[in-house]
This record gives sequence, C-alpha cells and structure tokens, in this order.
Amino acid sequence: MRTVIECVPNVSEGADRAAVEAIAASVRSAPGVRLLDVSSDPSHNRSVLTFVGDGDGIRAGVAALFDAALPRIDLTRQRGEHPRVGAVDVVPIIPIRGATLAECVALSREVGAAIADRHGVPVYLYEDSASAEHRRNLADIRRGEFEGLAAKMEDPRWKPDFGPERPHATAGAVVVGARAPLIAYNINLGTADVSIADRIAKSIRHIGGGFRYVKAMGVELSDRKLAQVSINMTNFKKTPLHRVFECVRSEAARYGVPIVGSEIVGLTPADALFAAAEHYLRIEKFSPDQVLETRLLEEE
Amino acid sequence: MRTVIECVPNVSEGADRAAVEAIAASVRSAPGVRLLDVSSDPSHNRSVLTFVGDGDGIRAGVAALFDAALPRIDLTRQRGEHPRVGAVDVVPIIPIRGATLAECVALSREVGAAIADRHGVPVYLYEDSASAEHRRNLADIRRGEFEGLAAKMEDPRWKPDFGPERPHATAGAVVVGARAPLIAYNINLGTADVSIADRIAKSIRHIGGGFRYVKAMGVELSDRKLAQVSINMTNFKKTPLHRVFECVRSEAARYGVPIVGSEIVGLTPADALFAAAEHYLRIEKFSPDQVLETRLLEEE
Repeated sequence: MRTVIECVPNVSEGADRAAVEAIAASVRSAPGVRLLDVSSDPSHNRSVLTFVGDGDGIRAGVAALFDAALPRIDLTRQRGEHPRVGAVDVVPIIPIRGATLAECVALSREVGAAIADRHGVPVYLYEDSASAEHRRNLADIRRGEFEGLAAKMEDPRWKPDFGPERPHATAGAVVVGARAPLIAYNINLGTADVSIADRIAKSIRHIGGGFRYVKAMGVELSDRKLAQVSINMTNFKKTPLHRVFECVRSEAARYGVPIVGSEIVGLTPADALFAAAEHYLRIEKFSPDQVLETRLLEEE
Repeated sequence: MRTVIECVPNVSEGADRAAVEAIAASVRSAPGVRLLDVSSDPSHNRSVLTFVGDGDGIRAGVAALFDAALPRIDLTRQRGEHPRVGAVDVVPIIPIRGATLAECVALSREVGAAIADRHGVPVYLYEDSASAEHRRNLADIRRGEFEGLAAKMEDPRWKPDFGPERPHATAGAVVVGARAPLIAYNINLGTADVSIADRIAKSIRHIGGGFRYVKAMGVELSDRKLAQVSINMTNFKKTPLHRVFECVRSEAARYGVPIVGSEIVGLTPADALFAAAEHYLRIEKFSPDQVLETRLLEEE
C-alpha cells in the first residue's frame, strides 16, 4: 500500500453491540479498506472506527459506513453523554503516508459530496477542509446538537457545504474534513502538585504563546500521586514530540521537578517516533525507506 | 504478514547482470516471498539479495534461489575480490517480527537439510545455528575458499552438517544460519583525528571490554575532515543504539570532541528506532502495536 490514508469516523451508537458489529462488518467488507480498530463507549453511546486505505478505499469505506449506520441509528431516540449532531457524527480524514494534507482536503470534499448525493445527509466541512473560519472547529459546528440543528441551519452562516438545507430526519448532519494526524501524548512529572503541570501546560500550548500545534492541560494522576501534562499534538511534523518533551523538561526543571515518564495514548504514526530517534541519535540523511517495515508496506 | 523473517543470501555473481536478474526473478516469483532489494558489486563479483516472508516463504525463496543460481554460477571459473566458498555463499536467516531467534535456528536447519537433499550441496550451519563453537564464524568456515574446500572437508572438524562430504563440483558449499538483525551504524565525531575514533571504537567493542553486541573501528572521512566510529550492532535488542550513542558521547567528551552526526547504512528494523524514541522520550509501557503501520502489517 503506497498510499495510506486514515479515516476515524465517530458514530452515535456505542451500546447496541449487534448494531456496532454490523457497521464494522460493512466497513470491513468494503474494497481496499483495512479496519484496524473499533472502540465503543456505552455511556457516551458512541463508537470510533479506525480504518485505512488509499483514496478509493476511503471513499468505499465511508459509503459502506453510511449504508450500515443510517438504518440502525435514529437520533430522535438516541441518548448518550457525548454531544452529537449526526448518526455518523464526524468523519476525519488523515494523511499517513504517500498523501498530503491538501490531497486529503480534496478527498474530503469528494467524500462529502458523495454522502450528500447518496444518502441525502447535509455535510459540513471542518478543520483543514472548512469553507469558512467559523466552521473550522468541530465543537462550533456541533453546538446545539441534533435537537437544535433545524433552527441552526436557518442561519446562512450554517448552510451546509453539501446536501439538503435541512437535517436528515433520523441522521441529522455529518461533519467531514481533513486534518493532520493527532497524537495524544502525556508527560508525567515527579510531583503530585497539579498546579505545576497546569503552569507548564499553559507555557507550551498555542493559546498561551507556546507551540503552534500543541493543546495541553494539567491533570492529576491521584492513584500514582503524580501530576501530568496532558497534550494533544495536532501536527507532529511541524511541532515534533521531542521538542515539546525538551521544553517540558526545561520548564519542569525550573520547579525542581523531573519528568518521570510519558505515554502515547492510542495509535501514533511511525514517523513521529522515527523523528525522535533521528533527533536524539543525530542521524544524518535519515529516510523512512531505511526502515525494513516501511519497505514491506511499500512493496505491497 | 504477522511473521516477518528476513533472508539475505549472498551469491557469487555480481558482474553478469542477466544472471543476477534471473536469480532475482526466481526469488521474486516464489510463493509468500517479497524481494526487497538486490545489490551487486561487479569487482567483488557478488550480489546480496534481501527478501522476507514467513517460514514457508523463506523455504520457498531459498529453493528458488538455488534453482536459478546453481546453473548460472561455476566456481571453477568464477573470480572476484570477495572470498567465497559457494555459488550461493551464505544464507543468513533473521527474525524481524513474530518470530524468535530460536525459531529461525530451527528454520535454518530445515532449510539446510532441504538444500542438501534437493541440490546435493554440502551445508555448514553458522552463527546461532552452528553445531560447534569453531564453526560459528563465517570467516573460519570460508577460510581456504572454494579452491581449498575439498582438502578442508577431509578434516573431521569440517564435516558438513548436511549433504555430501565433498564439495559440489561447481557450487562448492553453502553456509546457512540464523542470527539477530545487524545494524550498520556510524557515529561521526567533530574532529579529523582518527586516533580518537580508534580509541573510542576500542572502548565500546566487545573484544576490548565494551558492549557484548558491538563491533567497531575508527575510520577517517577525509572528504569531510571528520573521524568516524564505524559500528556493527549485532543485536540491537540487547545492546541498543542509544546506549552505544551515549557511551560514544561520553568517551568523545573526554577528548573535548562532540558527536556531529550519525548514519544508519542500509536497512534497520523499525523496533531499533522505536527503542531509541522510547528511551529518550521516557515512554512508559510502549508497544509497537501502538504504531499505526505495525497494525497495518499485522492486518495483512
């Protein structure tokens, strides 16, 4: 597989295992798709599927997802802790290997248009695919949820990018867009004082003057008596893990606090770890093609 | 591909491109085999093929290699700078993922027995597969080369592990065995004084009291006016890159010399780089399964 694009759709069903399995089976059987993971949260009543493919695979996988999800999820009756605006709530499309973010933006527009045509569901483009700045953030698009959607759509600022200008009766709307891979990366400090983690989080995050592609907050790990800087790395190519790690190390040292460990939550692209090895080992002219497993993926 | 075993046979033909391509084509067409690389050196008159597969793939690939190589290479006439004892000179079998070194030792014995049966070529087991300590090193088995083989085989210490107790008339013998992946890793020092690189090489290599799985020597990079510690890492799981890098850094600092860069020559398993990232980023409970591309390989 020379081109690897990841798609991580969130669907508004996490309690009915038969329904989730039917949706997963539909995606799994789509041509050119590899379904890597399905995680369901019953109290959120939400499931996250992870699948990969090239452009054709992503198109086929999303179509198969909608085919199976729409008859099984009725938002007029669905309840859960997690906010949602659609039966298929959000469809992020993420370049991993052999595809650029710009190519995934173009793909997301094709996928959005196809959803509107084939399923009659209104589509909002978000993140790097957003057609206007106020529609870039998922939370802003989702505000008001399914129940408030019909009223919201009357505002010209919330006209959908594709499809009907009213909600689908049972499926609401869907938010589709391209974004860079996100890495959930937490750094654990050798202190129980969460205020130190808070101050460090504020210093490294974009909103506070820190790194452009970092979101962070301080968290207390009470069972381990540690404080944690909990980080979302929203573009590891432009803001790499090692740079954030070294900045946290330096800030923590100012309080006399060491870093005792870090965690990657969920999946990471291999390139994020190769970049850290390349940095610390000072490797010259490194190419992912020097990695045996990369060759294996490319030889497929 | 859940199990990835690498096989890196060296054949004694590197000048006749048609012959090399015929041998490569035979390997490429074997079931369950992926041929990743072919490198030929005309003055050495030698080619190195790199292919991967599971156990069945390796068995099929080695059989296909012999089928194509034996009719094309005649050691009674072959000349080249590189020492050789066989038309197919050496067949290293290397665990990459989902297989242990012990499993590759067992596989190498099966492969060796099959070569003897099918092709009538005597087989010596070496490295981790060796049947005696004096037969562990390739150089010791190869000493005397093809021309001295008939006399050498009269010594009971050099009775082959499988096959006839005399050389194959045109193909000599073959050396087969399992070993851990080898990484060629060079560290460049901010000095032109090669004696410093020499002293550091002596301090880190096994023979001089250094790391068990390190071979090293000092090399002059005259075009860059740098000295280099040139390293073969013979087991990166037990002696990891970062530990050797930090030791070289510390030794170099004793001479007031910085590390200006490093190089990985050829291919490396991904795990060697993941281990460096894990070390420097202090990642807790890291698993290669957290890497998206690893999942992709496993899902095949």
